[in-house]
Amino acid sequence: MSNLILRNVRPYGEAATDLLIRDGVIAETGTIADQPGIAVEDGQGAILWPGLIDAHTHLDKTTWGMGWHENNRAAVLRERIDYEREMRLELGMDPHRQSMRHAIGLAAHGATHIRSHVDIDTTHGLRLVEGVQQTREKLRGIIDIEIVAFPQSGLMVMPGTLELLDEALANGCEVLGGIDPCGIDRDPKGQLDALFALAGKHGVPIDIHLHEAGELGAFTMEMIFERVRATGMQGKFVISHAFALGMNDELRVARLVEEIAELDIGIATTGAPSATVPSARRLKAAGVRLGAGCDGIRDTWGPWGLPDMMDRARIIGMKNGVRSDHELRHMLEIVSQGGADLMRLDGYGIAPGCKADFTLLRGQTVGHAVVQPALPPLVVKAGKIIAREGHCIVDMP
Amino acid sequence: MSNLILRNVRPYGEAATDLLIRDGVIAETGTIADQPGIAVEDGQGAILWPGLIDAHTHLDKTTWGMGWHENNRAAVLRERIDYEREMRLELGMDPHRQSMRHAIGLAAHGATHIRSHVDIDTTHGLRLVEGVQQTREKLRGIIDIEIVAFPQSGLMVMPGTLELLDEALANGCEVLGGIDPCGIDRDPKGQLDALFALAGKHGVPIDIHLHEAGELGAFTMEMIFERVRATGMQGKFVISHAFALGMNDELRVARLVEEIAELDIGIATTGAPSATVPSARRLKAAGVRLGAGCDGIRDTWGPWGLPDMMDRARIIGMKNGVRSDHELRHMLEIVSQGGADLMRLDGYGIAPGCKADFTLLRGQTVGHAVVQPALPPLVVKAGKIIAREGHCIVDMP
Repeated sequence: MSNLILRNVRPYGEAATDLLIRDGVIAETGTIADQPGIAVEDGQGAILWPGLIDAHTHLDKTTWGMGWHENNRAAVLRERIDYEREMRLELGMDPHRQSMRHAIGLAAHGATHIRSHVDIDTTHGLRLVEGVQQTREKLRGIIDIEIVAFPQSGLMVMPGTLELLDEALANGCEVLGGIDPCGIDRDPKGQLDALFALAGKHGVPIDIHLHEAGELGAFTMEMIFERVRATGMQGKFVISHAFALGMNDELRVARLVEEIAELDIGIATTGAPSATVPSARRLKAAGVRLGAGCDGIRDTWGPWGLPDMMDRARIIGMKNGVRSDHELRHMLEIVSQGGADLMRLDGYGIAPGCKADFTLLRGQTVGHAVVQPALPPLVVKAGKIIAREGHCIVDMP
Repeated sequence: MSNLILRNVRPYGEAATDLLIRDGVIAETGTIADQPGIAVEDGQGAILWPGLIDAHTHLDKTTWGMGWHENNRAAVLRERIDYEREMRLELGMDPHRQSMRHAIGLAAHGATHIRSHVDIDTTHGLRLVEGVQQTREKLRGIIDIEIVAFPQSGLMVMPGTLELLDEALANGCEVLGGIDPCGIDRDPKGQLDALFALAGKHGVPIDIHLHEAGELGAFTMEMIFERVRATGMQGKFVISHAFALGMNDELRVARLVEEIAELDIGIATTGAPSATVPSARRLKAAGVRLGAGCDGIRDTWGPWGLPDMMDRARIIGMKNGVRSDHELRHMLEIVSQGGADLMRLDGYGIAPGCKADFTLLRGQTVGHAVVQPALPPLVVKAGKIIAREGHCIVDMP
């Protein structure tokens, strides 16, 4: 837990001030005099923003640093899943090494927290979770990693997976994942009942991938709503992707959003450019917690993505047809406070009393900082400088 | 017209070779020996690609370098047009200075040709065209600029504009523009008849903005098809944006694309992230000429965009749901050969006999070069090095 004086920064783009950090906590803002034994850093008028949050990613899936993975298959979701499960072995993808690369990349670009969904299946068992857990230990004090026990290959269609999820939750995974109860598992009742029972047993929240679009996804959401209500999981459920909320049926979407708000279900978006995505504007108006993630980056599924939540804010903003400065600001809130709301982080923010987890951003205004690709001049975790100009103090392995 | 020996480059990502340029033309590839009086440049194994082409932009509209333009209006198309027309004066936007900035930015990022639509209206007359014409002269030998005489504010709703377009075409504009004959002009027959007559008078091609989506845009396209056929404008018409081609009605779109191919109408896309856009995959399969542009960047319409056709290739690729390497390559072709096809450029390419207009790109493979943001190591125009590592030999004013 470090001490630091940071001079001349603009909290949320407002007037410049100084910051005193004591024991990893923001102690004071205003004009701060030098203090014996406390290092001083010049913020040079940069924007001060709470640490960015990747609330939906897959740290161990990236091929980053392994040479370009050429891929000329025309695969649909199920095929991508099966291809990846087998290619991990063929390519020698070390889950610890790859998750280190991805997480360090995120930290270098201003992130201080990650929620990573990690595959659990009968081919790999808990090997992938263990690799990411090693990374979490190694990067303690650099970036916080929360792990979702994620049945990527399906739960009902792959017997033995439920037991592995149970074991993972007993061994340090904080959240239970899930995936397309119809599309992947072909048994929505079976999968959802099993997930809610397991989450109840371990007292953990659920964060489910829902790629199902249109009416199919809407149907699954309704099944989720029933179970959230019946089990008292209000406030403890996140729907990731939620592509069905991007469908055209105005009344249908309005009703789904209303129920999502009422049950305090969170939504994690990636702004998927080629899919129908939830409207950030609409969810904000309804008071729904909305975070965002980079999802898989440069993996066997596809070539896109960077370990950079500012890049993601731009993708989400463009997809949502954002043009105004107040909506640009909203995009930055989604990749910061929005993620903290999804993950229920304590002490998040840049007010006195908050944990000193933040990034500096370059830009004349907040809107400018969002649209202009630039490396963050400084990233601070628990009061310690962990990256400068896009370079983390820990090198990628 | 310059001479140059370029060593160790990979044409289209293939095996490394050297290149001899004589008098601004690619004379020879293979192993090239030193030659007296000809400078030698080491390509360091970079990918050699024909110069990138911004086939749809508005050079004089950007606020680049003028400080951040804060904008909190929630405006629709007509309001954005009117706001911009007035703000140009209020903000003191010099069309020459601003178009210099935008064009130099494009050249620095690997572009060698631009098609710029320049507003012509009764407020500004030909002032904006003259500003861009000045830029074209100043940047001769750095980047080629083609000018579209563009009635941004409408033709039928702004009497006097037709006469100004006539004057512009007599004074060096190479292409006649147009905009939403229904949405903006409320008189599709009137506008289209006027445009075809004027283009016929000057013997110039037409490139029309068509934001009209769904059935409205499809209707306007049909009116265009009738007139292309009647006036023999096959091969001389471009539809920019063509959002209607992104609609869901499969049969309707199939029929439109069929007619576009038959009439050899070109399409210019921006991959607009929040709109319905034409499918690049589908147009390629139909053999339709498809180019791309950055459109307006950071202007009074909105904050997005960079003067960078590689960034645009990524936006178009993500929007089109591209995942495979051969489709990544297609994205790069759209922002290069595709633009050349739209603009009917002579001597375009990197084979012996072609003009030496090209860029080097960093990447292990072509796919890698597309997805990984990086500055082009070298950009060459007519055999002369005009940019290195994102820095043009001409500074932005």
